[in-house]
Amino acid sequence: MNDTVKPYVIGVDLGGTNTVFGIVNQRGEVLCDNTIRTQEYATAEAFVEAGVACLQPLIEHVGGIATIKAMGIGAPNGNYYSGAIEHAPNLPWKGIVPLADMFSRALGIPVAMTNDANAAAMGEMIYGVARGMKNFIVITLGTGVGSGIVINGQLVYGHDGFAGELGHVTMVRGDEGRPCGCGRKGCLETYCSATGVARTAREILAKTDRPSLLRELDPEKIQSLDVSIAAGKGDAVAKEIFAFTGKMLGEACADFAAFSSPEAFIFFGGLTKAGDLLMKPIEEAYNAHVMGIFRNKAKFLVSGLMSSNAAVLGASALGWEIGE
Amino acid sequence: MNDTVKPYVIGVDLGGTNTVFGIVNQRGEVLCDNTIRTQEYATAEAFVEAGVACLQPLIEHVGGIATIKAMGIGAPNGNYYSGAIEHAPNLPWKGIVPLADMFSRALGIPVAMTNDANAAAMGEMIYGVARGMKNFIVITLGTGVGSGIVINGQLVYGHDGFAGELGHVTMVRGDEGRPCGCGRKGCLETYCSATGVARTAREILAKTDRPSLLRELDPEKIQSLDVSIAAGKGDAVAKEIFAFTGKMLGEACADFAAFSSPEAFIFFGGLTKAGDLLMKPIEEAYNAHVMGIFRNKAKFLVSGLMSSNAAVLGASALGWEIGE
Repeated sequence: MNDTVKPYVIGVDLGGTNTVFGIVNQRGEVLCDNTIRTQEYATAEAFVEAGVACLQPLIEHVGGIATIKAMGIGAPNGNYYSGAIEHAPNLPWKGIVPLADMFSRALGIPVAMTNDANAAAMGEMIYGVARGMKNFIVITLGTGVGSGIVINGQLVYGHDGFAGELGHVTMVRGDEGRPCGCGRKGCLETYCSATGVARTAREILAKTDRPSLLRELDPEKIQSLDVSIAAGKGDAVAKEIFAFTGKMLGEACADFAAFSSPEAFIFFGGLTKAGDLLMKPIEEAYNAHVMGIFRNKAKFLVSGLMSSNAAVLGASALGWEIGE
Repeated sequence: MNDTVKPYVIGVDLGGTNTVFGIVNQRGEVLCDNTIRTQEYATAEAFVEAGVACLQPLIEHVGGIATIKAMGIGAPNGNYYSGAIEHAPNLPWKGIVPLADMFSRALGIPVAMTNDANAAAMGEMIYGVARGMKNFIVITLGTGVGSGIVINGQLVYGHDGFAGELGHVTMVRGDEGRPCGCGRKGCLETYCSATGVARTAREILAKTDRPSLLRELDPEKIQSLDVSIAAGKGDAVAKEIFAFTGKMLGEACADFAAFSSPEAFIFFGGLTKAGDLLMKPIEEAYNAHVMGIFRNKAKFLVSGLMSSNAAVLGASALGWEIGE
């Protein structure tokens, strides 16, 4: 059977709360989707069974399993080489879970897995702002900071499948670095994730008595969205928080350029809604700190896949790569 | 004509002082070589003419140009994509010099160029300790710190051909970083090059009055080799200098792992003669600072190509890749 009669792939966005299954065509349109609650399934076996059951009506809808080329899963701690989720702290199944094999046996089609940030990079390359690019880095700014790195047109998985953890390069060395969920200190993620932005807000508010709309909120409950809203209203402190975040990201990107000299840095996730308030400081800090040979060369872009189905689309892109 | 009748490649190690031309067989043996003085040629045209003249007897020796598959050149600021040396500060020819094209026209064979650290990485992959590896990083510790990065079995050149400048990631941020030849501050190179080691020696000697064999030397004339010799004699200060250098390299490698998760870090150049005095602190600092998922996985190796012909061999490896 060739491509013309297998015109679809399945994309799966496996998250800590929900898992979304979608069927995607070659133009990158999500034709239909369905959701199950990840946490409801105590075992991976039960999860796969529920996933297959939730996929059945979607598969029927597009003409049966014979029309599906392959399935791609984006999941936290998803390892491309092993097709397994390995020690994901926020999922109910502990240890190493060979989810790609389990779905492949249940559905009878090839299944590949990668982590969520790599899926986003794949999505940008096939459907998004990185179309035609061979060297770029996607940086996801969410609860954490993730990354998907593309070099010579290929995702970088490294020797063990865990490459691309740019949220965990050290930006502040020594004891003054902020403690990170990974157990170390000073990681980029502690400054530039949504959580990091909220922490920066609390620190600035506590250290000074400058007036700010953010003072109307309980400091412990401030979220990055509150900072975005305040900045949008012209609040000087909120703008400074984004300037600090952007500067940290720009300096990190200057180091990443020395590594792989990408054509573009692409930012993905809720924080990018701050627009130029975030993106301008990133680009300025980058050009101020990068080696002369790289200055004013890289593009700084916001993801073109910001719809609610972006993660499904990214994961589905993996399906085109592995499908027979 | 096929490989069996084109059994040789030419490797060229173009340095600031000398340029060595060698003919290499498929087993990685340099059959014969010849040297010209780089600085004697005011124009690139005169240099190419002299190079071809110096190659003629070597080519005759192995049976004529029909036995040569291709030529590879390793040169400072050599760009793989353009085949040109671009703005090399230590060479007599300014601007952009399309040396690969010039040699190709003069000799009638394909010619490729890359920078010296990339040539070293290519050499390790084909002839050295990285045989069989698909993901590794070579770090050259010389007057400067260079790097050649291999991912998925390919050299990383990046969007513009200048990727792999790991000597210029920022290790000490802000004004307290040591000034670097690249015009910025705090680069890895300022701490871990031969020059950086000598500077560390001067700083430690000036700051303390601890006894050391290094105090017998004029501080301004101390070189990294003096530190090696003193350390070899058990000098505590000299050992501490290598421990500091190794710690800085190990912390840098921890960040590089987050990028590409290599199987091995391979160190090349005179400083590696310090052996465990340097290599142990590198590995210890790496495992102390790297993310948990990478800990105790990477190999730390010293180059297997430390003979005087290593650079020729590395450059020649490029010839096998591009030869028809």
